[in-house]
Amino acid sequence: MQFYLDGFRPGDPDVRPEAAKMDGVPDVVDVLVIGNGPAGSLLAAQLAEFGGISTRFIERRQTPMEKGQADGVQCRTVEMFCAFGLADQLNREAYHITETAFWGPDEDNRGIVRTGRVIDTEEGISEFGHVIINQARLQQYLVGKMGQAPTRLAPEFGMEVMDVRLPEEESEPVRVTVRQLNVEGQPETVIKARYVVGCDGARSTVRRALGVRLVGDPQFHGWGVLDVLGQSDFPDIRRKSIIVSPTGGLAVIPREGGYLTRLYVDLGDIEPGEAIRERVTEEYIVEAAKRLFAPYAFEPRQIPWWSMYEVAQRVTERFDDVPDSERGTRSPRVFIAGDACHTHSAKAGGGMNISMQDTFNLGWKLAAVLEGRSPASLLDTYNAERQPIAQEFIDFDKAWALMVDGKTADGEDVSTDEIRARFTDIGRFTAGVATRYPGGLIVGDDRHQKLANGYTVGMRFHSAQVARLADTRRMHLGHVHEADGRWRLYAFADRAPVTSPASRLRALCDFLAGDPESPVRRFTPPGADIDGVFDVRGVLQQSHDEVESGDLPALLRPVKGSLGLTDHEKAFTPDINGGADIFDLREIDRERGALVVVRPDQYVAHVLPLDARGELTAFFARFMTAAG
Amino acid sequence: MQFYLDGFRPGDPDVRPEAAKMDGVPDVVDVLVIGNGPAGSLLAAQLAEFGGISTRFIERRQTPMEKGQADGVQCRTVEMFCAFGLADQLNREAYHITETAFWGPDEDNRGIVRTGRVIDTEEGISEFGHVIINQARLQQYLVGKMGQAPTRLAPEFGMEVMDVRLPEEESEPVRVTVRQLNVEGQPETVIKARYVVGCDGARSTVRRALGVRLVGDPQFHGWGVLDVLGQSDFPDIRRKSIIVSPTGGLAVIPREGGYLTRLYVDLGDIEPGEAIRERVTEEYIVEAAKRLFAPYAFEPRQIPWWSMYEVAQRVTERFDDVPDSERGTRSPRVFIAGDACHTHSAKAGGGMNISMQDTFNLGWKLAAVLEGRSPASLLDTYNAERQPIAQEFIDFDKAWALMVDGKTADGEDVSTDEIRARFTDIGRFTAGVATRYPGGLIVGDDRHQKLANGYTVGMRFHSAQVARLADTRRMHLGHVHEADGRWRLYAFADRAPVTSPASRLRALCDFLAGDPESPVRRFTPPGADIDGVFDVRGVLQQSHDEVESGDLPALLRPVKGSLGLTDHEKAFTPDINGGADIFDLREIDRERGALVVVRPDQYVAHVLPLDARGELTAFFARFMTAAG
Repeated sequence: MQFYLDGFRPGDPDVRPEAAKMDGVPDVVDVLVIGNGPAGSLLAAQLAEFGGISTRFIERRQTPMEKGQADGVQCRTVEMFCAFGLADQLNREAYHITETAFWGPDEDNRGIVRTGRVIDTEEGISEFGHVIINQARLQQYLVGKMGQAPTRLAPEFGMEVMDVRLPEEESEPVRVTVRQLNVEGQPETVIKARYVVGCDGARSTVRRALGVRLVGDPQFHGWGVLDVLGQSDFPDIRRKSIIVSPTGGLAVIPREGGYLTRLYVDLGDIEPGEAIRERVTEEYIVEAAKRLFAPYAFEPRQIPWWSMYEVAQRVTERFDDVPDSERGTRSPRVFIAGDACHTHSAKAGGGMNISMQDTFNLGWKLAAVLEGRSPASLLDTYNAERQPIAQEFIDFDKAWALMVDGKTADGEDVSTDEIRARFTDIGRFTAGVATRYPGGLIVGDDRHQKLANGYTVGMRFHSAQVARLADTRRMHLGHVHEADGRWRLYAFADRAPVTSPASRLRALCDFLAGDPESPVRRFTPPGADIDGVFDVRGVLQQSHDEVESGDLPALLRPVKGSLGLTDHEKAFTPDINGGADIFDLREIDRERGALVVVRPDQYVAHVLPLDARGELTAFFARFMTAAG
Repeated sequence: MQFYLDGFRPGDPDVRPEAAKMDGVPDVVDVLVIGNGPAGSLLAAQLAEFGGISTRFIERRQTPMEKGQADGVQCRTVEMFCAFGLADQLNREAYHITETAFWGPDEDNRGIVRTGRVIDTEEGISEFGHVIINQARLQQYLVGKMGQAPTRLAPEFGMEVMDVRLPEEESEPVRVTVRQLNVEGQPETVIKARYVVGCDGARSTVRRALGVRLVGDPQFHGWGVLDVLGQSDFPDIRRKSIIVSPTGGLAVIPREGGYLTRLYVDLGDIEPGEAIRERVTEEYIVEAAKRLFAPYAFEPRQIPWWSMYEVAQRVTERFDDVPDSERGTRSPRVFIAGDACHTHSAKAGGGMNISMQDTFNLGWKLAAVLEGRSPASLLDTYNAERQPIAQEFIDFDKAWALMVDGKTADGEDVSTDEIRARFTDIGRFTAGVATRYPGGLIVGDDRHQKLANGYTVGMRFHSAQVARLADTRRMHLGHVHEADGRWRLYAFADRAPVTSPASRLRALCDFLAGDPESPVRRFTPPGADIDGVFDVRGVLQQSHDEVESGDLPALLRPVKGSLGLTDHEKAFTPDINGGADIFDLREIDRERGALVVVRPDQYVAHVLPLDARGELTAFFARFMTAAG
């Protein structure tokens, strides 16, 4: 954590200086975020970081959510929470999945036996693990974060969206009619916003207003969900367990705090048109769970939350208000994210994660456009990037959910051994690290990929250990990446020492800092710190004993802030503690080095040679506006 | 973290259920803690955990401290903060010392050159590092913690102690007269308390009231202290540096946030009786620092805090109200802790740490006596244990402070090479892990030490990695130890598998849970959970694949709480991830196993054979009262 750049401030450094207040609530807010679920909360937390952007964050529920719903947090999501400074708290409270146990029918087909256990997340996939915590807590973390951000944003509860009206003219705002449920008489009001993001769930009003539909085949299969504090002699009650019992499927997900368990209970097939919600009660699900656990006992003592659902894997064909026929002629003004545009089974544990990834993708783009750093066309990439990811996950989810139920797509039986083998295969997918954005406006081509094979263009930046030069602190390079809308340029040194005139790293830094044609000079607003838009970090091949801070190019020891202080945290050396060297681990070309360009949402946008100045500038010029 | 034992509760699990309110403020409070410094804050945070104990926590300052004073946090202190659930936050915010740089005069004796760097904390000394953060932040953490504890304790500011009157009769309270500085007219009030703890600093009113004096030789040497946000080209500005320059000594302590630096600036010798405070100004110290940094530049941009002091290494001969002549005839009612009874140089960075260790030592004893679990004689051990530790540290500090100034006790010059060599030698001391309490009421003899050579009787329990049986979570065994006043009994298994009738571990657990003569049965109050006083944890030699939860003795899967839930976090297996096995690392006798008894303040009280039932019971019977 860095703080006190502009002077000492007493108290909690996570509480950032408050941005200058705008004069009242502006008539037209920059962004209206609808829905205090995971997607909306993450977006609001992201936008709250920008002092010059006005945001309102509304929620239909009249009070904050306290329990229930999703609970699986993928490695990739923990990485993202790390960028928000929330990973430590999350890791401290959450249950950590280490192994998944598989259970199948016993010999007599009357009860269940363990068929094996596998490591849940393959070593090296991420520096973080796969954790479980209630969705309500995640939302609380994010709401806490936005309350400490420069804009001190807070959700407004009891605000039900009645209607969303797109403007006729580009210059006009979107108009959202809201009924205020917490106000006497429940009056309606109209909120005008430059951009509207509907994170309002599977029954999204915003989606309906856009005239898009969730498309997918119903599965006609019912599941009950229980959060249970209870007694059981099931041996893996504190391990994630996938059970295929003679009478159906059961998934056991241990939860935070050491006592709570989430169960997904197979309720069997449903007749099309059957109103399963009418016959299924809490007791019904408990009885089903008891049968599935046999011969082990299962006795609930408290059920803080339960629900039931029919699996519905659906996705909308677009995630914004621009129909195909108009794509490219105008940029979107209204977006949908999360369950509003894709719903999943609970099996692959992805839904909440993908929802937050949606808005992490969108948030920095909205900020760049609203701050005038990028043209509105940048916003076209949200739909282009996220809709295919949702579609891909739905396809995966369908196959996996069937498999967990013991069936192939063709209705063949699948053994738990087969499930177990497949489980390991799909690890990167369920860890959330398989996402790959194709080349496009903000993702470069892969011509120079071989300079850094471990940083696949279009995939998330995979952190690794390094040592900070100034204080030899061993740390994760990726953890310097905060959710602040800035681009990271990781410059991995070439063979020449950084002190040498032959150093390409030094030449790159001097170009970036000094050449009016460099992206840093062209796209950083006057008056901003030199790392205000591009945060350049250097990773040397030399050991920390061989280099002094004063040897670094000026860009790697920049003077910043109102007091003119030196930032000493820009340069790193390979990890000194005997672990794998980042150059080897991520396959960096030691002769030539590499420049790894990382987007504000932690995805690798480009890999370039250190001396590819024209290419670098041209890349950013595609979607950045020269600072004025 | 474990929570929801008594049912689900929404929100932050660190905010524990509030204890039943007492009827108003009791006429006589159980404990009055005086002073919101490190010692007092830690004590108040500890006492706040006990819902049945009434505590008041007063401070003379009219508002909370915001900056300045101490900043060094030893490994041992981070371990202690871990018990309070505060280590993650501390580690996230603090500066981490990895290396210490040594600088000495250059060849011409006109400037300084680096003579070397050494690793600051030897690998393996503690799972935590040596960190730096402002004392004010530590106090804020502790005040936050007590506000979330069952008693929701908070400091009362502007309360100046005028007088402390000891009772004539045992049954009477101590009377403390307080002037309320924040109340109009500053009225006086009398607080009656069963116990009073003066953590009121070097000019302690409580100490004066007890008639004890800080004893020690003045050093007649002045030091300036600066917290600086500034510019410097000194190459180790972000490393802890000990500089012996031609004109004197300078210590550079990098601080939290990446920009702030603490400097200790040598102001030279002082004439006895000289009023150094009158001639020394902020500018004077800055100018001295500039000379000491030469040939490197040093330019402050903001100085949030500065001070000056004459080194005064002093200690009182006792830490409570009982004179030697009365020792053993009555137990203490008033205690002093922290700077009130020992003051140090800043060189060894120990003062704040030792102060908090004082009250961590005292807090659980007060709770045990006030809850009726131990006789008041337990309180005699506070002075007996802590006074010699302070004396020992003062002696060490004197020698070390001279050495850092480049002198031996005999006034000989010391080279920085010699300082560097000595620095490594004393690592365990400055890490805070050298403390060893001698055998006595609450520390057993070392007859069975060889069963667990890595757990020295009288020293702090040194954590190591294990895997939790129920969920294979890799974790530190020592981190199960919360600051909750409970004893930990770590039962390391003998060679026999836990399922075998020959298992001594199983026999021990069955004895503890079932035999009316066992300490668990004798000293745990009726109605309390079976781990309410003794938290027994089993460490198996078997791998987690070889044991099922159901194989464990009942004591290692106890049923607890109002809902009757099983605690699955009592049993561990050796770390499975290829690291060192805890049995080897801590030299546990694999044939016979070992029972390591750990006090509520994390110190090893005893090492016993698993079958030493009589010895175990006899040990606790020395200072525990049978529950009734």
